[in-house]
Amino acid sequence: MEFVDGVKKQEVMGIRAMEKLIRGGGEGQAVRVNGAVHAIRNMGEVAFVILRKAEGLVQCVYEEGKTDFDIRSLREECAVEASGKLHAEERAPQGFEIRLESLRILASPAEPLPLPVSKWKLNTSLETKLALRPISLRNVRERAKFKIQEGIVRGFREYLFSQGFTEIHTPKIVARGAEGGSNVFKLDYFGKKAELGQSPQFYKQTMVGVYDRVFETAPVFRAEKHNTTRHLNEYTSLDFEMGYIDGFGDVMAMETGMLQYVMGLLARDYQKELAMLGVVLPDVSRIPAVRFDEAKRLAAEKYGRRIRNPYDLEPEEELLIGRYFKEEYGSDFVFITHYPSKKRPFYAMDDPADPRFTLSFDLLFRGLEVTTGGQRIHDYREILAKMEKRGMDPEDIASYLMIFKYGMPPHGGLGIGLERLTMRLLDEQNVREAALFPRDVTRLEP
Amino acid sequence: MEFVDGVKKQEVMGIRAMEKLIRGGGEGQAVRVNGAVHAIRNMGEVAFVILRKAEGLVQCVYEEGKTDFDIRSLREECAVEASGKLHAEERAPQGFEIRLESLRILASPAEPLPLPVSKWKLNTSLETKLALRPISLRNVRERAKFKIQEGIVRGFREYLFSQGFTEIHTPKIVARGAEGGSNVFKLDYFGKKAELGQSPQFYKQTMVGVYDRVFETAPVFRAEKHNTTRHLNEYTSLDFEMGYIDGFGDVMAMETGMLQYVMGLLARDYQKELAMLGVVLPDVSRIPAVRFDEAKRLAAEKYGRRIRNPYDLEPEEELLIGRYFKEEYGSDFVFITHYPSKKRPFYAMDDPADPRFTLSFDLLFRGLEVTTGGQRIHDYREILAKMEKRGMDPEDIASYLMIFKYGMPPHGGLGIGLERLTMRLLDEQNVREAALFPRDVTRLEP
Repeated sequence: MEFVDGVKKQEVMGIRAMEKLIRGGGEGQAVRVNGAVHAIRNMGEVAFVILRKAEGLVQCVYEEGKTDFDIRSLREECAVEASGKLHAEERAPQGFEIRLESLRILASPAEPLPLPVSKWKLNTSLETKLALRPISLRNVRERAKFKIQEGIVRGFREYLFSQGFTEIHTPKIVARGAEGGSNVFKLDYFGKKAELGQSPQFYKQTMVGVYDRVFETAPVFRAEKHNTTRHLNEYTSLDFEMGYIDGFGDVMAMETGMLQYVMGLLARDYQKELAMLGVVLPDVSRIPAVRFDEAKRLAAEKYGRRIRNPYDLEPEEELLIGRYFKEEYGSDFVFITHYPSKKRPFYAMDDPADPRFTLSFDLLFRGLEVTTGGQRIHDYREILAKMEKRGMDPEDIASYLMIFKYGMPPHGGLGIGLERLTMRLLDEQNVREAALFPRDVTRLEP
Repeated sequence: MEFVDGVKKQEVMGIRAMEKLIRGGGEGQAVRVNGAVHAIRNMGEVAFVILRKAEGLVQCVYEEGKTDFDIRSLREECAVEASGKLHAEERAPQGFEIRLESLRILASPAEPLPLPVSKWKLNTSLETKLALRPISLRNVRERAKFKIQEGIVRGFREYLFSQGFTEIHTPKIVARGAEGGSNVFKLDYFGKKAELGQSPQFYKQTMVGVYDRVFETAPVFRAEKHNTTRHLNEYTSLDFEMGYIDGFGDVMAMETGMLQYVMGLLARDYQKELAMLGVVLPDVSRIPAVRFDEAKRLAAEKYGRRIRNPYDLEPEEELLIGRYFKEEYGSDFVFITHYPSKKRPFYAMDDPADPRFTLSFDLLFRGLEVTTGGQRIHDYREILAKMEKRGMDPEDIASYLMIFKYGMPPHGGLGIGLERLTMRLLDEQNVREAALFPRDVTRLEP
């Protein structure tokens, strides 16, 4: 009987291991690596073969007559395994190069690349980049964006674990949406009417009754027909919900702590990617918080923009508010609190001091809403009364209302749009740049 | 201007902190806690109030005349904040109790519980438990299952991060399914025909061309009409895919290493939950691997079961194979390799030694398939030829085939059904026990 014991001898070396080796006096040592041929610079008797690996690029040097293979057999995007001697070389991507002795082609492309992926910047339109996404992502700057996105999600989870949160997995096919029936993708579920979840709102609140504090990182779906630079029809939502809060300030404090942790993690583990994209991490040591009506007034006064609707924030107003807090307080972030009740879902808790407003907030990042959160109603009679006022039928969401009937602690939470947060962090102008395979009104592939 | 700086003073204590305090000589110290009233045992002048917190239960002792509240005002599932003195007490859930001095009710239920959630075991039918899922999960043994599930997902991610994998987020609304057009949930996507992804297969392979090794933990959707104890119509799939493999043995080795890490993490961080459910972690130090045809023969010979179809494994056969490897080798797991080509998708690599079989595997855990994986075709001409043989049109999946056209390394990967793995680990008989809010042919709520 054969057994698998989980130990695989590593014959090939990673970039980190080679960096360590060269720093530890490994000059001239024999190494074996694999990777994709990212670029070939053939200068006759000498050629540079740049290998692309997950961690970065590796410069290999081919000298005619010193190897067991013919450089002319090699093409870009061949997958290869190469052996040679390690040498320090300041001008090489990682500070070292491999002088090739042998090279084995593991796999070859059928056609030359449709895009110059090995260029520093892909000077192509967003349209082209997205149509050829499986290939354009092989560009090292393109893929660096999604490494940083990985770091955001890692940081979100790690911080919340450290704060006693439990991770949950809730269904995306649901009977009814959390925020009303419009703008949802509908589907037939074995003869029943179903939708794709617009948010895990009901489920995460439910789970506060079980674990006190929960989070989820999962896709959400919005059938909005907007075709803007800020909207996606499917995106990754970073959600958390916490019980036993004193107010929605606790939720903002938790988000601020999380952002501080995320920026620290990025600075520590994603330095190469940040440098490659020229990203300067924002200061999140403290984030100003201002009331909705006050924020509107401040921006209107400073920039001479008339307030058209006192109960709504237009995207241009968000930009001005973001600009105001950058100019006046040096902050890239600002919490806007006390959103009008009309603009918030029924489960939002109204401010007892003025029920036209809610105990809720948005977080703007450089003038773009990246988070919506707040305190939720936890009292059964209170939520029934608010539903009645809005003409909603409790029967429709009986399995959600069950949690209030049988008791819930005061609680609140938030949802963060991962792609929007990534987009702003990277200073991208279109949210599609921050989604691996974006879904918009015209895009269902790749 | 107000600022949020992310630091929230913790006035209330968690269970871990109190355990530490009592061990450090904190007998008699004043503490403040919050939680849900899980149970009240009123014995007249003395009452035990058991609080439910995320980490466990806390015993509070009420003595008439020593507190500022009336025990009769308290009901199960009230959310409370309580203060008192900490005392060691061997018979209490955490080895300590709090002698109450004051108690404040933060929120109250409208009705008494429909289920005795504070009982050790919920002696109700699965039907009732699922219908009342938001409440039945408040039972400490019910919720312990999903804490363990959290640990599996954490371990999966942590191990793969340590092995150089990158986490990805891929779309769930797709133009065409990864494994053919049957058994998919269909939806209208702004006038285009779309489906819910049955697996992130195409996307994770695509991302191997970008990051060499990738993983995703996300929902997948199967519109199968089976109503069995093993099937869900939406589940969480733990997927990984790795490039530069020497064969599918590398994938099995990675899974074995991951399982070893997960079991270690559970033993370290989820001890209370394991003990509560009486879970004995399986030995994963080595996992036997046996060919599909050989496994069928071994089970047939030992248990006298006739092989009806040499190209398929029936569920009963899987159970017998699981039993065989438990009896003969003491292993709860067994890799079944070389599945028939007919039973595998077109992208599976056929065995050059005998193309009727593939370089693929399933992992059985106590006789249940919990993983499907294998090596994939990486050569453009080879995948086109296999599609042609199966009567498939390459035009339908051109944006997937693009990756082979422009070059892919040899690669393979797997998908693990999180709920099935959890179910087997917990020795549950129905996969619904291992899904927070299961989706099956009859169940769309809660």
